[in-house]
Amino acid sequence: MRAEILSIGTEILLGHIADTNAQYLAQQLTELGIDLYFVSQVGDNQTRVTETLRRAWERADVIITTGGLGPTEDDVTREAICELLGETPTVDDAYLAQLREFFMKRVGRFPESNTKQAWTIPSATILANPIGTAPGWFVEKDGHRIISMPGVPREMKRMWTEQAVPKLRDQSGATLVTRLLRVAGLGESPVEERLGDLIHSTNPTVATYAKNDAVDVRITAKAATTAEAEALLAPVEAQARAVLGRHVFGTDGATLPGAVGELLDKVAWQMATMESITGGLLASYVTDQPGSSDHMRGCIVSYATDLKVKFGVPQAMIDTYGVISDETALAMARTVRDQLGAHVGVSTTGNAGPDAQDGKPVGEVHIAVVSPKGEVARQVNLRGERGEIKHRTALAALDLLRQHLLGDA
Amino acid sequence: MRAEILSIGTEILLGHIADTNAQYLAQQLTELGIDLYFVSQVGDNQTRVTETLRRAWERADVIITTGGLGPTEDDVTREAICELLGETPTVDDAYLAQLREFFMKRVGRFPESNTKQAWTIPSATILANPIGTAPGWFVEKDGHRIISMPGVPREMKRMWTEQAVPKLRDQSGATLVTRLLRVAGLGESPVEERLGDLIHSTNPTVATYAKNDAVDVRITAKAATTAEAEALLAPVEAQARAVLGRHVFGTDGATLPGAVGELLDKVAWQMATMESITGGLLASYVTDQPGSSDHMRGCIVSYATDLKVKFGVPQAMIDTYGVISDETALAMARTVRDQLGAHVGVSTTGNAGPDAQDGKPVGEVHIAVVSPKGEVARQVNLRGERGEIKHRTALAALDLLRQHLLGDA
Repeated sequence: MRAEILSIGTEILLGHIADTNAQYLAQQLTELGIDLYFVSQVGDNQTRVTETLRRAWERADVIITTGGLGPTEDDVTREAICELLGETPTVDDAYLAQLREFFMKRVGRFPESNTKQAWTIPSATILANPIGTAPGWFVEKDGHRIISMPGVPREMKRMWTEQAVPKLRDQSGATLVTRLLRVAGLGESPVEERLGDLIHSTNPTVATYAKNDAVDVRITAKAATTAEAEALLAPVEAQARAVLGRHVFGTDGATLPGAVGELLDKVAWQMATMESITGGLLASYVTDQPGSSDHMRGCIVSYATDLKVKFGVPQAMIDTYGVISDETALAMARTVRDQLGAHVGVSTTGNAGPDAQDGKPVGEVHIAVVSPKGEVARQVNLRGERGEIKHRTALAALDLLRQHLLGDA
Repeated sequence: MRAEILSIGTEILLGHIADTNAQYLAQQLTELGIDLYFVSQVGDNQTRVTETLRRAWERADVIITTGGLGPTEDDVTREAICELLGETPTVDDAYLAQLREFFMKRVGRFPESNTKQAWTIPSATILANPIGTAPGWFVEKDGHRIISMPGVPREMKRMWTEQAVPKLRDQSGATLVTRLLRVAGLGESPVEERLGDLIHSTNPTVATYAKNDAVDVRITAKAATTAEAEALLAPVEAQARAVLGRHVFGTDGATLPGAVGELLDKVAWQMATMESITGGLLASYVTDQPGSSDHMRGCIVSYATDLKVKFGVPQAMIDTYGVISDETALAMARTVRDQLGAHVGVSTTGNAGPDAQDGKPVGEVHIAVVSPKGEVARQVNLRGERGEIKHRTALAALDLLRQHLLGDA
């Protein structure tokens, strides 16, 4: 099956917004095993939308459009589909009644221009929009399909997942099961190396994605039934887990601060951070997690070196080993654990750039964890710009803490 | 002049990467006053790249491509352009020598497959790539132009700015001058309201962009010479500045933490933060700025309420007014100023969600600043998810500090 994506909206052509919908749909099609050869963006102009739809109709089995389904004259996707197919729209009374009720509840009146949003044509089924006013269309004609969805990403994703994907699956006669493994402490290349030949597996497929906060490994199996797909997936997931070991910190929606929080909550320990290089970013990541007050006491950012001493890091230690060292990192972690009355202290010190500092190069970072289990410090050498080094230091500290709580560090 | 953008790379069609190049170029074309009607993404397949180029050639004056200029068989942009134009590539010996030298220096050998990167054709001029190995092409034939650039965003942007834009300007016979005003403390709609009819001005054009950390107002004037463009721009910039007042915190590359840092450095004051809701994010933003150690002492994240008291916030104040109040925010700012030996204390307290807390709704935030100039506290009510509320609280605190240092709050 061949698909083509068409994103409609002048704001994309003006560069005002990024077309994130196309990337999302491209990923989804890859996972569904549907080939995607062309993606286009076109403005709110009926002639150009129709022209692009016509070309896509010639070369694809499924056309997926986003945008242009609003109530204004600028919204021309429905009109362009009617022009392409030579069909005349009629108003779907049932949907119009729903739409009218939605508007009356929300704003107390129904703008008549919105009637257009209840249009349908003989080849189309309306895709309901539970969180917005623009419904979608699922068109089937002459062996081709068009799936038209709103441009608002939240509305589009929900309509895609709940309504479009099941229809596509029904027709492909196959069921997909996917498992996402989230990996910390390894870059994308080492993850691929460990996975070895699994990467070339065709069913399930195994793919890696370097995300901002982790490397994701997505395993997707396709079969006639869910049970068969699960049976295909299970041994591959087991192999992937075996080679990745405890670098896997969770599945699907998991986050590193969330994984750390769960480990802390399990033993009812609370943590505190003393941060120099990360400047509070590590504590901020920990507190991004709802419910983090259960395991987070707080943080001291000792950006000025004399503050480290004021709060309890021995001056002699700084004089002997320097601010950017394992020893000072350990002293910082002990200090904040004691000062803030936590079970676990975590610290970061290092040089985020742009210049060398205390004779240490940009990117030299030391992180430490102290807890009732013991103490651990680690040096990491990071590359990138200032913000990137801070971010990766915070992730490294979270992962060291995770490994420590698991008994691996 | 009509342009069309073509992004080439199978990784885009698989959804592995977002096509950020297209959005960047779309913005650039808008500013250059060049119309953009179609954008496409296509994989590394010569037939499909040539097909898409041919269509673009029929309907555009300028085709801008990114990607597909590497040395491998998968990189087919040069081949597709040759096929489209019916031209045969030859090796540019001078460029090949440069390329060879680049490789010898970097990796000690020159892979012969890279010879392809020194190809040229009669209609093309080579665009040098000072920070990568793939040069670009500037093609001119039969009144059409093709600008082919590498897909790596950093390399593409530099080649675009330094080499492509000047060529496009030469040919349009016009010069553009742009000014970007960065605005804090006002949303995009209030900014547009204040700008009023300026938004409809055609030369200079005035456009607003809601960015993650500010609202940007971009003013672009077009004229035969730079001096004439400057003369057109100046009165409109003055009008915009007059209606936006001190909400304008800088131009072009300015950041809010940078603007605050400059104000502090000017009077040689140092700041410290005491954070509850932001969990260290405010301090992290301040320390994102290189050189921030000149004006940043540090931070206390008092996530646990008892830590506020431990460091000096009077228990009676919390009992009387609650943790989420102007009074407690002021006490926190005073406390951290004293504890960390700073001139200026800044604080944040509030409810980031997901549930009501101490009877305060999600999004109720109090921020405070104390300095030798005096004290100020402010309540803001924010919407959004947890991370968004934290981010906007940190920005609000930075802007309150900025206004305070300017004598406006």
